[in-house]
Amino acid sequence: MIVVMKPGSPQKQVEHVIQMVREMGLKDHVIVGQERTVVAVVGDDRFKDRTVLESAPGVDRVVPILAPYKMASIEVQKERTVVSLGGRAKAKIGGTTVGVIAGPCSVESKSQVLEIAHAVKEAGAVGLRGGAFKPRTNPYSFQGLAEKGLELLALAREETGLAVVTEVMSIDQVSLVNRYADVLQVGARNMQNFNLLNAVGEQAKPVLLKRGMSATLEEFLLAAEYIMSKGNSQVMLCERGIRTYEDYARNTLALAAVPELHRVSHLPVVVDPSQGTGKSYLVDSMCRAAVAAGADALIVEVHNDPEHALTDGAQSITPKQFSAMMHSIRRIAAAVDRNL
Amino acid sequence: MIVVMKPGSPQKQVEHVIQMVREMGLKDHVIVGQERTVVAVVGDDRFKDRTVLESAPGVDRVVPILAPYKMASIEVQKERTVVSLGGRAKAKIGGTTVGVIAGPCSVESKSQVLEIAHAVKEAGAVGLRGGAFKPRTNPYSFQGLAEKGLELLALAREETGLAVVTEVMSIDQVSLVNRYADVLQVGARNMQNFNLLNAVGEQAKPVLLKRGMSATLEEFLLAAEYIMSKGNSQVMLCERGIRTYEDYARNTLALAAVPELHRVSHLPVVVDPSQGTGKSYLVDSMCRAAVAAGADALIVEVHNDPEHALTDGAQSITPKQFSAMMHSIRRIAAAVDRNL
Amino acid sequence: MIVVMKPGSPQKQVEHVIQMVREMGLKDHVIVGQERTVVAVVGDDRFKDRTVLESAPGVDRVVPILAPYKMASIEVQKERTVVSLGGRAKAKIGGTTVGVIAGPCSVESKSQVLEIAHAVKEAGAVGLRGGAFKPRTNPYSFQGLAEKGLELLALAREETGLAVVTEVMSIDQVSLVNRYADVLQVGARNMQNFNLLNAVGEQAKPVLLKRGMSATLEEFLLAAEYIMSKGNSQVMLCERGIRTYEDYARNTLALAAVPELHRVSHLPVVVDPSQGTGKSYLVDSMCRAAVAAGADALIVEVHNDPEHALTDGAQSITPKQFSAMMHSIRRIAAAVDRNL
Amino acid sequence: MIVVMKPGSPQKQVEHVIQMVREMGLKDHVIVGQERTVVAVVGDDRFKDRTVLESAPGVDRVVPILAPYKMASIEVQKERTVVSLGGRAKAKIGGTTVGVIAGPCSVESKSQVLEIAHAVKEAGAVGLRGGAFKPRTNPYSFQGLAEKGLELLALAREETGLAVVTEVMSIDQVSLVNRYADVLQVGARNMQNFNLLNAVGEQAKPVLLKRGMSATLEEFLLAAEYIMSKGNSQVMLCERGIRTYEDYARNTLALAAVPELHRVSHLPVVVDPSQGTGKSYLVDSMCRAAVAAGADALIVEVHNDPEHALTDGAQSITPKQFSAMMHSIRRIAAAVDRNL
Repeated sequence: MIVVMKPGSPQKQVEHVIQMVREMGLKDHVIVGQERTVVAVVGDDRFKDRTVLESAPGVDRVVPILAPYKMASIEVQKERTVVSLGGRAKAKIGGTTVGVIAGPCSVESKSQVLEIAHAVKEAGAVGLRGGAFKPRTNPYSFQGLAEKGLELLALAREETGLAVVTEVMSIDQVSLVNRYADVLQVGARNMQNFNLLNAVGEQAKPVLLKRGMSATLEEFLLAAEYIMSKGNSQVMLCERGIRTYEDYARNTLALAAVPELHRVSHLPVVVDPSQGTGKSYLVDSMCRAAVAAGADALIVEVHNDPEHALTDGAQSITPKQFSAMMHSIRRIAAAVDRNL
Repeated sequence: MIVVMKPGSPQKQVEHVIQMVREMGLKDHVIVGQERTVVAVVGDDRFKDRTVLESAPGVDRVVPILAPYKMASIEVQKERTVVSLGGRAKAKIGGTTVGVIAGPCSVESKSQVLEIAHAVKEAGAVGLRGGAFKPRTNPYSFQGLAEKGLELLALAREETGLAVVTEVMSIDQVSLVNRYADVLQVGARNMQNFNLLNAVGEQAKPVLLKRGMSATLEEFLLAAEYIMSKGNSQVMLCERGIRTYEDYARNTLALAAVPELHRVSHLPVVVDPSQGTGKSYLVDSMCRAAVAAGADALIVEVHNDPEHALTDGAQSITPKQFSAMMHSIRRIAAAVDRNL
Repeated sequence: MIVVMKPGSPQKQVEHVIQMVREMGLKDHVIVGQERTVVAVVGDDRFKDRTVLESAPGVDRVVPILAPYKMASIEVQKERTVVSLGGRAKAKIGGTTVGVIAGPCSVESKSQVLEIAHAVKEAGAVGLRGGAFKPRTNPYSFQGLAEKGLELLALAREETGLAVVTEVMSIDQVSLVNRYADVLQVGARNMQNFNLLNAVGEQAKPVLLKRGMSATLEEFLLAAEYIMSKGNSQVMLCERGIRTYEDYARNTLALAAVPELHRVSHLPVVVDPSQGTGKSYLVDSMCRAAVAAGADALIVEVHNDPEHALTDGAQSITPKQFSAMMHSIRRIAAAVDRNL
Repeated sequence: MIVVMKPGSPQKQVEHVIQMVREMGLKDHVIVGQERTVVAVVGDDRFKDRTVLESAPGVDRVVPILAPYKMASIEVQKERTVVSLGGRAKAKIGGTTVGVIAGPCSVESKSQVLEIAHAVKEAGAVGLRGGAFKPRTNPYSFQGLAEKGLELLALAREETGLAVVTEVMSIDQVSLVNRYADVLQVGARNMQNFNLLNAVGEQAKPVLLKRGMSATLEEFLLAAEYIMSKGNSQVMLCERGIRTYEDYARNTLALAAVPELHRVSHLPVVVDPSQGTGKSYLVDSMCRAAVAAGADALIVEVHNDPEHALTDGAQSITPKQFSAMMHSIRRIAAAVDRNL
């Protein structure tokens, strides 16, 4: 890190900073500029709290140089992580094939989930999404079928071979969800629920980690680091739109996050255009754009009867629309030398 | 709610919407404009999922009219909620007295917490803050002293009479924290950790609920509604800065949230200028501004040795600065006909 | 629009609102709900100031129903606008061909602009971008070559046939820039410089209008409406990234704006991935994503020597990278049934 | 500035950076860390374009150390600037007295402006605001009375002695507005209309510069620097709310900008709670908070008949409310040792 002193800070304050740096077990390197002195700190300061230096007298600010995450960093692991989804399909996310995970927002009934699962399977999906535990903004909204929903997902897997991707909201649900799911999903609202991150980090199942609504990529990768530091390296990073002032869509889908995450991390990147826009009529073009941007997988909400969906009807597409969309993204995948 | 049809939507689509509205148990009221038809929906649609209407053919969008929360709403309860903090001080938050809760970011040691507790008590604080379980962005950072920290907080309460306000991060910590704390704090990162909200809603202790980093006030009040719907009406709403593009401070402290929350809710409003700015040199003026804006309480980070603080040194003020600040906000409180 | 009364507002206040509505020459339609009364206003209220209704006693808020722009709206003109760029190439933007406009951020010298112009021409560009007047955040930065720069652009057009796209910053530059340019560019910082919008609206040249840094799409389309209302219907809308809390890129490129603008407007949509990310290493993938999302054109910064560029070196790609990029987006264009 | 190399960048790339730094006339200082090399650049690099270094091979990023503005910086001028408003009142902004500028959003008629001017004068205002040229988002909205409006403002000054503060939107209006106004206002949408900044910088009248809707404080101060670099040092910085995801108010009033601007600049800081919230019911408390935060002046929209205001009725308060507000902020001013 670089400690920038205030203009005209006396030598005594610089020496105090030097002493603090040395107490941290790091080396200092003082550079006296025309207007300010800066103290360059040499050594692995990744896990040091730089805010203490900011509170020393005469310090203007502290600029970090090293990324604060390690296991998620491409500097530590050069080869790209490939995650095996499980299910009979045993699809791999992170290689040359673009994987598509599709299904309803919520599991609502046996016929609903089976009908959708067969349809998306037929259209080329490799994973089945569907919520049994639902994080709802409103306490009075439908909260999911819980274990009954998990059983229906497992039934759909049995019939279709699709890997089951489903959300776990709380540490006391982890072992239950783990029994049924192939992939544990951590939702955007829980991206910094650190106890939950630790808990899924201790499971032997891949984790689909959604980016928090206003998380920086650094915070996102540190959330992945929580999971990885507990021993689970099968993490997929999911861009699902961020909160901005924009009002025509539910979120602003930040597709430049795809190449940037690939630049700084070896983990595969998934895009969720359904959550990312909240509007079914924007899903198709954003799926195409995501694959063109290099996404390793897509996760898409599909409902056989959006008008009667218990959750998120406005962003769900129908099986027929999904099938057409798969056709169009297959062409995009080919144009970036990938298949689907 | 108001269902706005697309321009030129045929009568058949309008009739379909009418039918959906009636199936929901609500009444419709069709208004044919020059360019568009709108269907006004009459009845308590607060807990209906309006996204299903958005996915009906011919619908452009659906505009909600009623606020989706009830127990937190001033429409339901006119008199303002006053929360009793507990501790020997038995301070009340939400009346004419402005309460100040102060203490270290993290509990670090017996001498640290006791020294700070005595200092802030003497300066006029009514509550002691201090984290025993710490939500840290980085898995390798100090995570708090856990139960040992809670014991030290209880000791400080015994010595000073201050009410203990401390964070609970996870449902498996609730009963433990509840044993020691006077006020259960739910952090910004957990504002939509719905399982945790339900769990603290079942306790008999007041809850200090921090606004999520990018939460709207509606989402904030719905999080309070989760707690209240479980039977705990002692909720304090804490504005602690939101995430914006601004870069001179850690967050943007949105003080207009104070009068707006008072306008729509009966719950008391607390402001956290330490988290809200992340810079100790901005805390003093933002405390003054918060009280001038009508805040019912402040929560402030104070450390006896910020340079050696294990967390958040840059935003902590010293006991001496705190004492001067209390003097200056006492004057502001008087200028808005409150005391401190 | 819909006027939402406060809960319990007395009949007198409702009647007052009705009277105001009628004074505006509009019709009212009162709906008495269980908790609130709403007054639906029927008629073309597009150009009425709804804030006056918001200040009437008993009014909670006013919800607009009609989009406030007309000429830019797809409701008024169903067929898509195709803009002819000019130059010998006479490329058309808005049809099945995706147009690429490329060139340096700033015109710096004859050799620079000619070398780049020939290179991008050869790679398939149809327009040459290059700033002669530069809006710079810092008053001490290079401000552009002014008329000398325009002459060099004209020379490059003569040699290559490329249409010249260049920014006009101020009303006193309009006639000068108009003499040299084929397309007048209005920059993001001037999107709401209404006098400038009026001035370019009076010219007979197409306008490339960049979205303001924090403009909503409605504000963006109203800026286009300013230009169109003066008689110039040749407007291209350019998404160039918005300001958010994200810090890995200079802006957040909001690609969902492409299909959304196509949904509500007939104007062609251009994407600027250079400004949109500020990082040369993100340009390639965002160009692909933009074309996959349906962009009608791209505008890309290319420099023959980015290390010595006078402006925006970090986001410029080299002619060689540009050529490779053109190859890759040609494949994407084909995959969405367009050519390049 | 600090040039951060990529991990493992070869010595040749570091040498290339060193050479670039020396070509810029600056000195280099190389620090070899465990994982990365950084090149500290010594010398006044304030006006160098750091993006060229970012495009050199092996460079990860470039971190600026010096603030890019000079004349606006407190490092260059320690004593605070006091601006004399003009008018018979000759009020001074930036000293111990808090100045209040009040008046209608738009000048609408003689009786309107005179009635309001007398009322705000009586309540203690020192300046009269009122728009004659109005920047309107919608081309079909009322655009102001132009010179007729300026004449009415001058008449109101003659009758009341209040200094006239009014907006100039375009360079061709500068000499006209200058003839009538005591203070030239540059609106938020024009904060980076650099030609306009230069033009008002050449006048002998104080400038009230509004912060752009999504401007950083650095960009804000660089806009002030444009004006000051042309010779006009009488600049007032006006915080008027920024654009964020918040939806209960028109903007998010960022009051921490007040102490932060005071920390880094010597220019006086004005707060506009009317634009900053867009809601008349939030103006009073935000005026109090602004003064408590240290604002040197307030600018407030007052209308004698908000329901019939031609612009911004929803955020205007009545003369009676203004008078009550003045009473309440006088008490706050006293509590921070200032008068009004």
